[in-house]
Amino acid sequence: MDTVSKLSAYAAEHNSDLRILGIPKTIDNDLVLTDHTPGFGSAAKYVAASVCEIGIDASVYESKSVTIVEIMGRHAGWLTAASALARKFEGDNPVLIYLPEVDFDQDDFLRRLEKAFCSKNNLVVCVSEGIHDKNGTFICEYAGEAGTDTFGHKMLTGCGKYLENLVKNRLGVKVRSVELNVCQRSSIFAQSLTDSREAAMAGSYGVEAALSGETGKMVSFVRGTDELYDISCALADVSLICNQEKKVPLEWIIQDGTDVSQEFISYARPLIQGAPAIPMKNGLPDYAYRK
Amino acid sequence: MDTVSKLSAYAAEHNSDLRILGIPKTIDNDLVLTDHTPGFGSAAKYVAASVCEIGIDASVYESKSVTIVEIMGRHAGWLTAASALARKFEGDNPVLIYLPEVDFDQDDFLRRLEKAFCSKNNLVVCVSEGIHDKNGTFICEYAGEAGTDTFGHKMLTGCGKYLENLVKNRLGVKVRSVELNVCQRSSIFAQSLTDSREAAMAGSYGVEAALSGETGKMVSFVRGTDELYDISCALADVSLICNQEKKVPLEWIIQDGTDVSQEFISYARPLIQGAPAIPMKNGLPDYAYRK
Repeated sequence: MDTVSKLSAYAAEHNSDLRILGIPKTIDNDLVLTDHTPGFGSAAKYVAASVCEIGIDASVYESKSVTIVEIMGRHAGWLTAASALARKFEGDNPVLIYLPEVDFDQDDFLRRLEKAFCSKNNLVVCVSEGIHDKNGTFICEYAGEAGTDTFGHKMLTGCGKYLENLVKNRLGVKVRSVELNVCQRSSIFAQSLTDSREAAMAGSYGVEAALSGETGKMVSFVRGTDELYDISCALADVSLICNQEKKVPLEWIIQDGTDVSQEFISYARPLIQGAPAIPMKNGLPDYAYRK
Repeated sequence: MDTVSKLSAYAAEHNSDLRILGIPKTIDNDLVLTDHTPGFGSAAKYVAASVCEIGIDASVYESKSVTIVEIMGRHAGWLTAASALARKFEGDNPVLIYLPEVDFDQDDFLRRLEKAFCSKNNLVVCVSEGIHDKNGTFICEYAGEAGTDTFGHKMLTGCGKYLENLVKNRLGVKVRSVELNVCQRSSIFAQSLTDSREAAMAGSYGVEAALSGETGKMVSFVRGTDELYDISCALADVSLICNQEKKVPLEWIIQDGTDVSQEFISYARPLIQGAPAIPMKNGLPDYAYRK
C-alpha cells in the first residue's frame, strides 16, 4: 500500500492519467480501515481446523501431554486468535492462547498449565511467533542466544520449540510443538468460500474504481450492522493505511492475556464459512504455477 | 498385530471361540504381506499437496532459497517418497528426496544443492525424520548433542531444523525448514476417497472373516495385475506380520539415494485419487471426538 501511495502521487505530479488502486491481500489481517483482508478467512479456517485436529490427535493418549502450536504473526495476533474457533465445547482446547499484543510471562504460563492439568490431560496451547516478554525480548530469542549444533553453528529456532523444551524440563510431561509454518498461508484445501468470493469482489471493485477515475485508494471491506453477515466494498485513502498495523483490540484479549473474547469469535466465524469446489488433477489440486 | 497374534493364541489355548482379527491402519505403510495400509493414501496425498504448495510459495521470490521439508518415517520412507507425487513437470521440486532406507551424507547433500542451483533458484528438499549417516547416527542427533537454551536446558530438535542451520551456515542462502508434523496424520481435508473406501472395505471384510470362524489373521490388500488399479481383500497370518517392517524397496530408490523411481510413482499414484465430501459444521469439518 506504500507503493500504491508513492506511485499515485508520482503519477499525479507528472500529470499522468495512470490510475493506481490497492487490492489488499494478507493472511495477517493487519491492515487498518478495512473490516478484514482477503486471505485471512482461509488462513483462519486452516488454523482452526488444524488446531482441532492436533487436539483430537493428542487426546487419543491417556497420559498427560502439552502440545504447543506456533502460528504466524510477528506483531498482530489475528491468526493465532483464530485458533479459538477450534473449540467444540466449553473447556475444549486450546486452553491457552497467547498473542503478541500482550506481554508473555513464562512462569505464569507454567502455573496455568499446571492448573489446567487438574481438569484435562491433553493440553493444546496456541502462541503467535512474535510473543515477547515485558522487556520486548522475543521468546524465540531465548532459544537462539545459546543454541549451537555439534559443529558450533548457531541454531535458530522458533518460540514453540523453545516452549516445548521449557515445559519438558520444568513440568516433566510429554510435550510436542507444531509450527504451522508456510502451510497456513499456502494450503488450498481449507479455503473459505466467503474469503474466495470476497477476494474476487475486491479485485473487480478495484478495477471498476480505476476505470471511473479513482487513484491512490485501497479497496476496503465494510461490514453491515445487521446480524446477518454482509460485506460491501468501499475505497479508503492509501496514505492513511500504509505503514500502519491493525492489531487485535486489547478489549478482545481476556483472561490476563491468555484467551480471546466472544466478540472476536463473532467477528471471525463468518469469515471461514463455505468451501469452494477445488479443481483436481491426477489426485492433487490443479494449482496455478510458473515453471 | 502383535497383540492380535497373542490374543488369538491365548483364546485357542483356552478353547475360547473368541475370534481376533487385525484390521490394519497406519500412515507409515510399513506392514508386510499387504500391498499398502489404510491411512497411507490420505497421508501421502497430504504430503504431496503440501510439498507442492510449499514449492509454489517458495517460487514467488527470485532470490536463491532452500526449503527443507521433514516428513514422518523413522525407519521406512514411504511417506517421504510420496513427495515425488508433487512434481508437475520434469525438473520440478522436490529436487532431492532422502529416505531412511539409505545412508545420508551431508557433504554430498551440500554439493548436490550447489549443483541444483545451476538450473533453479528455489529448491525444495524432502527428508524422512529418521535419516541417518553411515554409522547409523540419526541426523537429528547432530543437533541434539550440543544445543541448549539460555537456561542451560538441552534443546531437542528434528533433522529438518538441523539441516536448515547447516545450509544457512555453509551455503549462505535463504533457508527454511518445515516439519509436516502431526498434521500429516490428522488432516481431514486432504483425505483420499480411494483410501477412505478401502479402509471401510478392510473393516467389513474383517468382521465377515471373524463371523465365518477365522482368527489370528490380518486383513490384507491384494492389488490386481491389470493396468487398471484394483484392490481386493485377503487374509494373512498375523504371526508372519507382527514385529516386522516393510521398507521402500532399494530398487525404487535411485540417483544415489536422492530420489525415487517411476515404479514408486506408479505404485502410489492410484492411492491418492478422489476426494470424499467432508461433513461441515459452523465452517469447520464436523469431527468425531470425545470430550
